[in-house]
Amino acid sequence: MQLDFTKANGLLPAIIQDAASGDVLMLGFMNDVALAETQRTREVVFFSRSRNRLWKKGESSGHVLKVRDIRVDCDADSLLIRVEPVGPGVCHEGYRSCFFRSMASDGATQVIDERAFDPDKVYDQEIPQETKR
Amino acid sequence: MQLDFTKANGLLPAIIQDAASGDVLMLGFMNDVALAETQRTREVVFFSRSRNRLWKKGESSGHVLKVRDIRVDCDADSLLIRVEPVGPGVCHEGYRSCFFRSMASDGATQVIDERAFDPDKVYDQEIPQETKR
Repeated sequence: MQLDFTKANGLLPAIIQDAASGDVLMLGFMNDVALAETQRTREVVFFSRSRNRLWKKGESSGHVLKVRDIRVDCDADSLLIRVEPVGPGVCHEGYRSCFFRSMASDGATQVIDERAFDPDKVYDQEIPQETKR
Repeated sequence: MQLDFTKANGLLPAIIQDAASGDVLMLGFMNDVALAETQRTREVVFFSRSRNRLWKKGESSGHVLKVRDIRVDCDADSLLIRVEPVGPGVCHEGYRSCFFRSMASDGATQVIDERAFDPDKVYDQEIPQETKR
């Protein structure tokens, strides 16, 4: 099956789901090289849009995502990657999932989960906020 | 919380998850109008990149997605929408989920689910393939 990288400037959205709990943990983007690296190493590698380079999830935190299964959708333009997450959480803000806020109809958000770890202890303090991954 | 629509040409990826089973059903994109319509009607409305217009999920099939909860990620650039799906499946190919194919390391894919309905009976035969939604 030929993946369709044309719709988002060479990138595909990749949903990361905890294979054991079914929880959606995060969404990242992959170009063809990131996907090939993910398949080769069996650990998730994204393409960072903000840094314009490959980004191995957990490269600074150690919280890597071990690949259990990769699924592709009907239009071949989105991926669902079921993983075993290593560590207490995937989010650089210290939560198990990056989707830790619920949004009401008026746009107001509410935190619906508890912090799983202290990000200040996991991420090097020299690393700027936007590269805490 | 201000959503960041700047990273993907005014669109945010929106993951659709079955609130009851936890299964990921599909991924679509939303612009600000599609999100506002989704919030107002409590049924999912996407922005179709291929047709360049709003697209209410289920507009031809009747398989609408009733919104249970909307979550936003840490970077405010992705949505997780937990739904109650109406009908046997969301995929225009007749499956419960659009992610019905597993992909091996060599790129070969395998169908891992059974058809939930006959798309020929659900979608008007006059409708071209790319607009079967």
